[in-house]
Amino acid sequence: MPEPTPGPGEVLVKTLACGICGSDLHALKHAERLVDSARRSGAPFVMDLSRDIVMGHEFCAEIVDHGPGAMKSLKAGTRVCSLPVLLRPSGIETVGYSNDNPGGYAQYMRLTEALLLEVPNGLSTEHAALTEPMAVGVHAVAMSRLDRNDVPLVIGCGPVGLAVIAALKLQGVAPIVAADFSARRRELAVTMGADVVVDPSERSPYESWKEVATWPDPSQAPALPPWLPGPPLRPAVIFECVGVPGVIEKIMAASPAAARIVVVGVCMERDSFEPAFGINKELNLQFVLGYTPQEFGATLFHIAEGKIPVAPLITGHVGVDGVAKAFEDLASPERHAKILVEPWSA
Amino acid sequence: MPEPTPGPGEVLVKTLACGICGSDLHALKHAERLVDSARRSGAPFVMDLSRDIVMGHEFCAEIVDHGPGAMKSLKAGTRVCSLPVLLRPSGIETVGYSNDNPGGYAQYMRLTEALLLEVPNGLSTEHAALTEPMAVGVHAVAMSRLDRNDVPLVIGCGPVGLAVIAALKLQGVAPIVAADFSARRRELAVTMGADVVVDPSERSPYESWKEVATWPDPSQAPALPPWLPGPPLRPAVIFECVGVPGVIEKIMAASPAAARIVVVGVCMERDSFEPAFGINKELNLQFVLGYTPQEFGATLFHIAEGKIPVAPLITGHVGVDGVAKAFEDLASPERHAKILVEPWSA
Repeated sequence: MPEPTPGPGEVLVKTLACGICGSDLHALKHAERLVDSARRSGAPFVMDLSRDIVMGHEFCAEIVDHGPGAMKSLKAGTRVCSLPVLLRPSGIETVGYSNDNPGGYAQYMRLTEALLLEVPNGLSTEHAALTEPMAVGVHAVAMSRLDRNDVPLVIGCGPVGLAVIAALKLQGVAPIVAADFSARRRELAVTMGADVVVDPSERSPYESWKEVATWPDPSQAPALPPWLPGPPLRPAVIFECVGVPGVIEKIMAASPAAARIVVVGVCMERDSFEPAFGINKELNLQFVLGYTPQEFGATLFHIAEGKIPVAPLITGHVGVDGVAKAFEDLASPERHAKILVEPWSA
Repeated sequence: MPEPTPGPGEVLVKTLACGICGSDLHALKHAERLVDSARRSGAPFVMDLSRDIVMGHEFCAEIVDHGPGAMKSLKAGTRVCSLPVLLRPSGIETVGYSNDNPGGYAQYMRLTEALLLEVPNGLSTEHAALTEPMAVGVHAVAMSRLDRNDVPLVIGCGPVGLAVIAALKLQGVAPIVAADFSARRRELAVTMGADVVVDPSERSPYESWKEVATWPDPSQAPALPPWLPGPPLRPAVIFECVGVPGVIEKIMAASPAAARIVVVGVCMERDSFEPAFGINKELNLQFVLGYTPQEFGATLFHIAEGKIPVAPLITGHVGVDGVAKAFEDLASPERHAKILVEPWSA
């Protein structure tokens, strides 16, 4: 690949480490759908699939050179993180889902200088690279409008679900209930802060949730329409962290009344549902995508301060030649959580 | 029909006026679906469709007699409104969607004494009967978490949409944008408080909305993930007041980024959608059903104080013999908004 050229206000960086995201596995499989739905919904993920694309948007990088008109407040050699976007006069462009802006699975990227965050002294490169996926959890929890009476339930403990659990723990909410079919992922969920973990092949996660969601004092329960079903329970906040067709409908069918469902998983396919479940239980669905720049910056500092544990998530390292194999390996939930690409290693 | 017998803590009332609700038209057409989805979602609308059902849940009634153990704080002859439910030791039962508890399309009902609200002196019976449908709007707006920066868009101006417009006006929010194919309904929307009305056959309601939703000072716009599409506009709160399959998907496709969609329309059928629209625009869907007892009581007093205008909504009166014809007439949006059944009139 040719080295990208930094434009005005941009920097050339070399990628030190870049996590492989489940969205990239999705995007490889459903590239046409991704581009089609991006085009129809106005999202900036519109790519020409006949041209090359270098993926990778969870990176820690090192500044190599500055483009014209740069402020140079961060010198060459500084380690940085950044949102995977370029802010250009013509509008926003993505890094890693773009024909023109290569992502972190290759040696070089260009980034917008104004978005760079210096990696705090003492924070390892590989932990800094986890900023992006952890910020997804921080944002999902922020969008859930969490209250201290809420009892969260995390459906799916892949990297997205684990990031949500870490962000819930950071908020001090308890108990946190989490469900995954994989024993390894349930272990990781506990490491990240889950108080109750469930194997859905053995028990309904909603039954486990109900056991810990009773009001200590039922008079605290908020007023609801009297025809909503079930006993008054503490509000459920259910994080959908799976992202395959049918999961949203299953969650809507199994949810307690007045639940808020935060859709963090990315399902690219068309899907179906029954509005009657939403209506009869007054459900709320909040779809989320990514994070704000403020949340991204806060996440980096939470990781640096040890408030979001990321070490247990890193289960593998590969060079550029190992990316294809790593994509295959990530299909097995027992073996891997996050694999880091280190394009300069052998 | 035999006269119902009031149980402990209940009263026998005679119905003075009862509005015909679109949900009843839906329920007549999709009775099996209604019962099936109620059963599966735990809602108390489970009926035996081989037995008689007297519908009608938007009523003003007069106390005739008290059951055993009644408080009798309201005497026989008092005009009352009530949520259409019975609170019984065995649990909640509905009035009007029940084999055992007749609704307001017949002469007599039984009601729970503790839920009765006396009609304030000077408020007409027919206006009091509009409490129930107007409470639906009050609740939908409460569930929308309306902020003074929000710009609402009401899709569908049947009785539900008109109730939402009245509740928005009561909150002092402006401008209110409303869309309906019917000229008569758009007129009613203006009467109830809409500032901008749109005929979707002539112009996209979303384009009309955008024109009035710009930030006076764009720096007020909240931080959002940078990849959400479109210019920063004031937050959209879109009320779905249609309730047929496909409408939710169309709204999700046309919504601006970060919109909150409040689903007030009751679609009984299975439906489909594209999660990608929800994700790429971070949409929120809030399903609602009915109102709380507090909202119901507040609505009655707003009507009595003239803060919710209801007179323009009443477009017809029928006796019991006229109910079947009224169900047919309500299919035409140019002729009717709300028809009242007066079971004691000829």
